[in-house]
Amino acid sequence: MQDLIKKANQQAMNNLQKAQPTLIGIGIAGEVIPGMAKKTVLHAGPPIEWTRMSGPLKGAVIGGLIYEGLAENEAEAVSLAESGEIAFDSCHHHNAVGPMAGVVTASMPVWIVENKAFGNKAYCTLNEGLGKVLRYGAYSEEVISRLRWMEETLAPILKEALAIRGEIDLKSMIAQVVQMGDEGHNRNKAGTSLFIREIAPYVVLTDFSNEAKSEVLKFMHSNDHFFLNLTMPAAKSTMDPVGNIPYATIVYTMARNGTDFGIRVSALGDRWFTAPAEIIDGLFFPGYSKEDANPDIGDSVITETSGIGGFAMATAPAIVQFVGGTPQDAIHFTTSMYEITEQENEAYKMPSMNFRGTPTGIELQKVIETQILPIINTGIAHKNPGVGQVGAGLVRPPMKCFEDALEAFVMKMAEEGLIE
Amino acid sequence: MQDLIKKANQQAMNNLQKAQPTLIGIGIAGEVIPGMAKKTVLHAGPPIEWTRMSGPLKGAVIGGLIYEGLAENEAEAVSLAESGEIAFDSCHHHNAVGPMAGVVTASMPVWIVENKAFGNKAYCTLNEGLGKVLRYGAYSEEVISRLRWMEETLAPILKEALAIRGEIDLKSMIAQVVQMGDEGHNRNKAGTSLFIREIAPYVVLTDFSNEAKSEVLKFMHSNDHFFLNLTMPAAKSTMDPVGNIPYATIVYTMARNGTDFGIRVSALGDRWFTAPAEIIDGLFFPGYSKEDANPDIGDSVITETSGIGGFAMATAPAIVQFVGGTPQDAIHFTTSMYEITEQENEAYKMPSMNFRGTPTGIELQKVIETQILPIINTGIAHKNPGVGQVGAGLVRPPMKCFEDALEAFVMKMAEEGLIE
Repeated sequence: MQDLIKKANQQAMNNLQKAQPTLIGIGIAGEVIPGMAKKTVLHAGPPIEWTRMSGPLKGAVIGGLIYEGLAENEAEAVSLAESGEIAFDSCHHHNAVGPMAGVVTASMPVWIVENKAFGNKAYCTLNEGLGKVLRYGAYSEEVISRLRWMEETLAPILKEALAIRGEIDLKSMIAQVVQMGDEGHNRNKAGTSLFIREIAPYVVLTDFSNEAKSEVLKFMHSNDHFFLNLTMPAAKSTMDPVGNIPYATIVYTMARNGTDFGIRVSALGDRWFTAPAEIIDGLFFPGYSKEDANPDIGDSVITETSGIGGFAMATAPAIVQFVGGTPQDAIHFTTSMYEITEQENEAYKMPSMNFRGTPTGIELQKVIETQILPIINTGIAHKNPGVGQVGAGLVRPPMKCFEDALEAFVMKMAEEGLIE
Repeated sequence: MQDLIKKANQQAMNNLQKAQPTLIGIGIAGEVIPGMAKKTVLHAGPPIEWTRMSGPLKGAVIGGLIYEGLAENEAEAVSLAESGEIAFDSCHHHNAVGPMAGVVTASMPVWIVENKAFGNKAYCTLNEGLGKVLRYGAYSEEVISRLRWMEETLAPILKEALAIRGEIDLKSMIAQVVQMGDEGHNRNKAGTSLFIREIAPYVVLTDFSNEAKSEVLKFMHSNDHFFLNLTMPAAKSTMDPVGNIPYATIVYTMARNGTDFGIRVSALGDRWFTAPAEIIDGLFFPGYSKEDANPDIGDSVITETSGIGGFAMATAPAIVQFVGGTPQDAIHFTTSMYEITEQENEAYKMPSMNFRGTPTGIELQKVIETQILPIINTGIAHKNPGVGQVGAGLVRPPMKCFEDALEAFVMKMAEEGLIE
């Protein structure tokens, strides 16, 4: 049976390595994301019903319903959410990913990324910046009006600029940023910089006012995480063809909704293996502490799943320094991830690791055997709706997800008569 | 006497460390650089007469005279250069620096950088990009018309954008790029990216056509060395206040004109100590070899003099890889430079060296004692006028410059009765 698994994993890894994530445009979620209606609300992580949602996810849902014009205020939004009229679903069930709460509603503009090697697409909202933002569960007037500006100004200008410029090869861009101190999850300064220099000459050529164009360039410049929302759908479009390969034990999804952490394993198809999300070990903004922290939340862990983020920490020691560690710790994190991954990335190479490829393709059995859990870089949301980000740090998934997945895999193999 | 030297070097290093290089604007060389007239031609390195100039410097002078309208063609330019009518002088004698040939003529636009801690200014032309360019000794029609476009479009737009935006703190920007894989001399990708994102929102707001603004943004985007011409005057403005401090043995200038390598030492004022420039150990573009190479040329070694460039190689292993080395070699280069420098840079810190500051402030006696010469990253020019760049690599200054300087220092101390 190990031969079958080995061969299947080779196939899965071939698919992963040959991915060609490419930014092809911007669309409106309700128009481009499969299966989205006016009353659909997509969210990060595995599926979850309203009553079990964490504070920041509830906050983002409230904000999404207000933004969508389906509710006037918090109270109306909560009643609507409770009414059963809203179709909540995982971003991942719709070829989408969302950072933190990951709420996507029908009117939101989304990046459209295509994996040119397979033709599959992935979608992600545009990054809102720092401070009070929907993805951290804030929904004040400031949050909603920024979302409107993004819909009315940011997205149309970038959409036109992209149409003039043509597609952008995200794989090549991510390969460059990994050599410029970004790990692609919690440090995106180089990525944001490269994207701005790539798009700016075409922003100028769009048919909008100079003031609007300048605002768009300033908005991107003011937010070093702007590129995260491109890395995420790049990773999602890379990982989808890794799923649903019989006998393959590669983890092709990791995601959290703020209550549960969930993983999906190639051979086990669309089935989620979930367990309570962990609290993040991190650095808190002044005035906040671990007591304020919501458990781990967001689809951004798709970066680690695809071989960057925490797995590429060696290339971004500034991240570890942020939580009190040293560059040596960063190298240690990356080195340990080779023990649970199937290959070294052929495109993403780290100077500080002698240009070794990042550890790529989490293999279920190796996690169980070594008892080493994936390392994840992430932001920390306040546990209550409406507050926002309170810090950033490092976290790991619950081991139970992997144990349950392995048990299910073994049962499936037994059902197929491959083991006794 | 060593006490006097120690105290003087402390003063010199205080000046170096507290420098605040800041981009304040763009001007026309003949209008802003002290002592420039229509028939002045500034060049890189120590002073040199026309007859002793190397091929690429002669080529750049020819191009400069044609661009300036002082000659119609190569033959006229050569006669004029030979006539004695042209006042050739070192950039360094006019608070300026120039990469490679470093030719500056009166009509060229120049960056104006001010060291806010001391009020001194430094000037540098704008980077022309790669391929056939004046700084590598090319002077074809293509070169001259690019220079005109820079004068008529690039510089006016950037000047206006800067005026709208306001000054840019270059020290903070260089500190960031040293954490993003740039060493600031031969790798300037992060710097160019950060500069573009900083200025693009204001380029949009200038009073020029969208086509011209887009061209300017594309021009900067197409040239990863665009930021070099900002790092250089930042370093020059940093180092000038380190010069002319009695008893200080810090090297405050290193520069090459393609024939001679020259250094200046703080206590010895404006006196140059020169020796024949070395041939560069490097990688050549297809079709070229060491036989085609001109000796070491350019003022860009002011970056190493100020503590970045080759001295910060550990942070930019991609450079060493380019010439066949490993990231370990890069760390070794940087580590060895601590042996000949006075301090660790307080602003420029390298992640791969556990955030240690770059080795900064070359101390003359240490070079002689250890026999370790500064390591320099550089481009390679063809030895004939009119050709251009043929490669890039690593080089060191001739030891003779340091030996002669130490001898002069000892004599000066003896004259002052401080030693027998």
